[in-house]
Amino acid sequence: MEMKLLLTVSIILNLAFTIHVIYRNSTTWNPTWTSRAATEAEDAASVSCSGHGRAYVDGIGVLDGKEPPCECNNCYTGKDCSVFLSDCPVNANSGDPLFLEPFWMQQAEGSAALVSGWHRMSYIYQDGTYISEELVKVIRKLHSVVGNAVTDNRFVIFGTGSTQLLAAAVHALSLRNSSSSTPARLLTSVPFYNLYKDQAEFFDSSHLKFEGDAFAWKNSERNDNTKQVIEIVTSPNNPDGKPKTAVLEGPNVKTIHDYAYYWPYFSPITVPADEDLSLFSLSKTTGHAGSRFGWGLVKDKAVYEEMKRYITLSSMGVSKTTQLHVLQLLKVVVRDGGDNIFHFGHETLKKRWEALHKVFSMSTRFLLQKIKPEYCNYFKKVRDFTPSYAWVKCERPEDTNCYEIFKAAKITGRDGKVFGSEERFVRLSLIRSQDDFDHLIDMLKKLVSQKAVEAHSDTF
Amino acid sequence: MEMKLLLTVSIILNLAFTIHVIYRNSTTWNPTWTSRAATEAEDAASVSCSGHGRAYVDGIGVLDGKEPPCECNNCYTGKDCSVFLSDCPVNANSGDPLFLEPFWMQQAEGSAALVSGWHRMSYIYQDGTYISEELVKVIRKLHSVVGNAVTDNRFVIFGTGSTQLLAAAVHALSLRNSSSSTPARLLTSVPFYNLYKDQAEFFDSSHLKFEGDAFAWKNSERNDNTKQVIEIVTSPNNPDGKPKTAVLEGPNVKTIHDYAYYWPYFSPITVPADEDLSLFSLSKTTGHAGSRFGWGLVKDKAVYEEMKRYITLSSMGVSKTTQLHVLQLLKVVVRDGGDNIFHFGHETLKKRWEALHKVFSMSTRFLLQKIKPEYCNYFKKVRDFTPSYAWVKCERPEDTNCYEIFKAAKITGRDGKVFGSEERFVRLSLIRSQDDFDHLIDMLKKLVSQKAVEAHSDTF
Repeated sequence: MEMKLLLTVSIILNLAFTIHVIYRNSTTWNPTWTSRAATEAEDAASVSCSGHGRAYVDGIGVLDGKEPPCECNNCYTGKDCSVFLSDCPVNANSGDPLFLEPFWMQQAEGSAALVSGWHRMSYIYQDGTYISEELVKVIRKLHSVVGNAVTDNRFVIFGTGSTQLLAAAVHALSLRNSSSSTPARLLTSVPFYNLYKDQAEFFDSSHLKFEGDAFAWKNSERNDNTKQVIEIVTSPNNPDGKPKTAVLEGPNVKTIHDYAYYWPYFSPITVPADEDLSLFSLSKTTGHAGSRFGWGLVKDKAVYEEMKRYITLSSMGVSKTTQLHVLQLLKVVVRDGGDNIFHFGHETLKKRWEALHKVFSMSTRFLLQKIKPEYCNYFKKVRDFTPSYAWVKCERPEDTNCYEIFKAAKITGRDGKVFGSEERFVRLSLIRSQDDFDHLIDMLKKLVSQKAVEAHSDTF
Repeated sequence: MEMKLLLTVSIILNLAFTIHVIYRNSTTWNPTWTSRAATEAEDAASVSCSGHGRAYVDGIGVLDGKEPPCECNNCYTGKDCSVFLSDCPVNANSGDPLFLEPFWMQQAEGSAALVSGWHRMSYIYQDGTYISEELVKVIRKLHSVVGNAVTDNRFVIFGTGSTQLLAAAVHALSLRNSSSSTPARLLTSVPFYNLYKDQAEFFDSSHLKFEGDAFAWKNSERNDNTKQVIEIVTSPNNPDGKPKTAVLEGPNVKTIHDYAYYWPYFSPITVPADEDLSLFSLSKTTGHAGSRFGWGLVKDKAVYEEMKRYITLSSMGVSKTTQLHVLQLLKVVVRDGGDNIFHFGHETLKKRWEALHKVFSMSTRFLLQKIKPEYCNYFKKVRDFTPSYAWVKCERPEDTNCYEIFKAAKITGRDGKVFGSEERFVRLSLIRSQDDFDHLIDMLKKLVSQKAVEAHSDTF
């Protein structure tokens, strides 16, 4: 009797096992040719770097079969990035948008892209262009959900970063110079993003001359209303984060709008941009500065064609591997109307600005830029600007070089002079990694308190 | 007794199942966050396009959740690319290097790359540069196994295609112009790759002027040995596939060597290139024209720094997504010393040239370029050149426009005039897909035989 029971149990168990094995084989997806790449990516992602770094599949030593090493955040070191170098200068210089990295780590599944070895080997897509139709679609969708730009009746053009598109736009507009005898003048109002000047001067086209500040030009004698001018309007502005409008107008003025920072992280979305030529950068949209991807919205067909010719002759379009990756990233962004990423990024920057205001409120030595709150159509409320950069003015008469003051306090910013402004200003980047920001706040606290003591001792 | 046996068997079976389940769980790798991307890639790869097309993960409609559609080769159509349009003109125009696509499909596992959503978001690698150290290593290794270039004492620079590097190199050398009053002259010998001229004329730098044929310049009065000149030497040459050496020499001459085609597919590897400034293109190395990646080997530090500044100001380096993909591709190339890919590619082109010679041998109307075989250090034997392009001369006096003759026969080549040569020449691309090539041969057969009849009827 017992044996019968045992047998029954055993047979039932066997049946259960059989069902389990059959079911598992039918439902488990067995990766074939993708498994090597997937394993490598998961292995690299699982390397522990103490939360102060990360390992990448293409890290140093991987060709020799080594595990990808931790690449530590600034001021962290050790095999697993666990050692903090307290005396290390904080990097607040470049606008490396690492503040969005944690978001993408949370969205690991949705944002991964597998590139096959035979992915789009041709120079062109099937429609004969250099640009992915699906990527154009998701970009139009992105502007529509954010409400920051009108894309109707606009040509969409891609570049290797908005860097390349800037050069293309300036070139295209300079060629449309009616007076061919004198070069077109490139202008922008101070303070301005230094690349505009650097590009124009380095590429040194016979059709273009950088002339500096748009206000100065407006009031100068040389502004005779016959010379062709190109004004670049950066809004919100780099370095100071303020909304900016064109200074110059008239039939001989062409305008390029650089909207790299016109996203809910940094600025209220007040109105959809509806300009002739607008530029956007993936770097400040999703945080992928390293992917070198930007796009432009262009109204005029002739200008668009000239820009396309520029992109063709300088690089024959943008990498299709990159376009695939960008498509995947923007798919994640738009699928919930941008809710996840823009809330994440905006909350991060709001907290950072609160911390910053708290530190600077302890001192009268330094002045932060002030921008009046505005109604944001995206968040549906009045909100503060939370710019990418602190644009700091050193107020004491003797603090003539603000960059040096901060440098002496082991904070590396960017000199105001670089932006066509005065040395009394310094730009501090607030969009870097959380480690960089936390370190910045610590060093700022020291700077502010130490100087308070010094200032106090001066009175004796 | 029977029941005892049954029980024993059943228990043994239970044990076997248990071991199976435990073993399977411990050895099967369960992809987590990579599985969505991997599944999508495998799904796209498994779409059947009758061998005359392929589906890509970023194909049209995927944003709407559709299965990626077949993208058919030229002259094929239908949902699964099974319909051949026999009356369709064959595309023998661009140098789209699809002849290597089947190789990468064979190497699916090794060549796949999974890009995580947080892959290298920073502008820079950890060493502060725009270029991946591992990728530099594998490129040096590649040149060493192929023996086509010396990389010792050379700086390696990356560009968005060799297209961008060409512009960077020309710019850097033009800035090193000793006589600043006159622009440097850009020269190259006819027939030449049209981009050299197009770039120089379009970018229109005040430091540079395109002057055309290097031989003509050498014998011209304007060659006064004081003007700074830059000669581009393309070897093997585009369009005619011939080895080429510099025409000009002297202290005022700077040379750029474009070695895009110096790979065993196209040419015997006679000697490792050991020049001041050499350029290479991924497009003709692995066939990935769409990835826009090229590199340069530069001897002089000052020239390298100027080129780097050009790349920085025009695009802030090359996409890190692309660099990751390229690393994976080149890993596959070098792991067997290039045996697999170079044999595959060379065999393909050898067969194509045999087919081509066979067709053209039936006619005296058209003349193909001839290049003397040479000893190839890579294949360790004397071998023919198997260039990327047929450079065809129309021999009949009345056939003044060779491009039009072929166009009338529904073969779209590229006009000889584009290369600074005569209309009596046409370039036919031989490195496109097998479908394009097979179609080309069919149309050529028709052209050759049809014209034989016409010529015959002319005698009446």
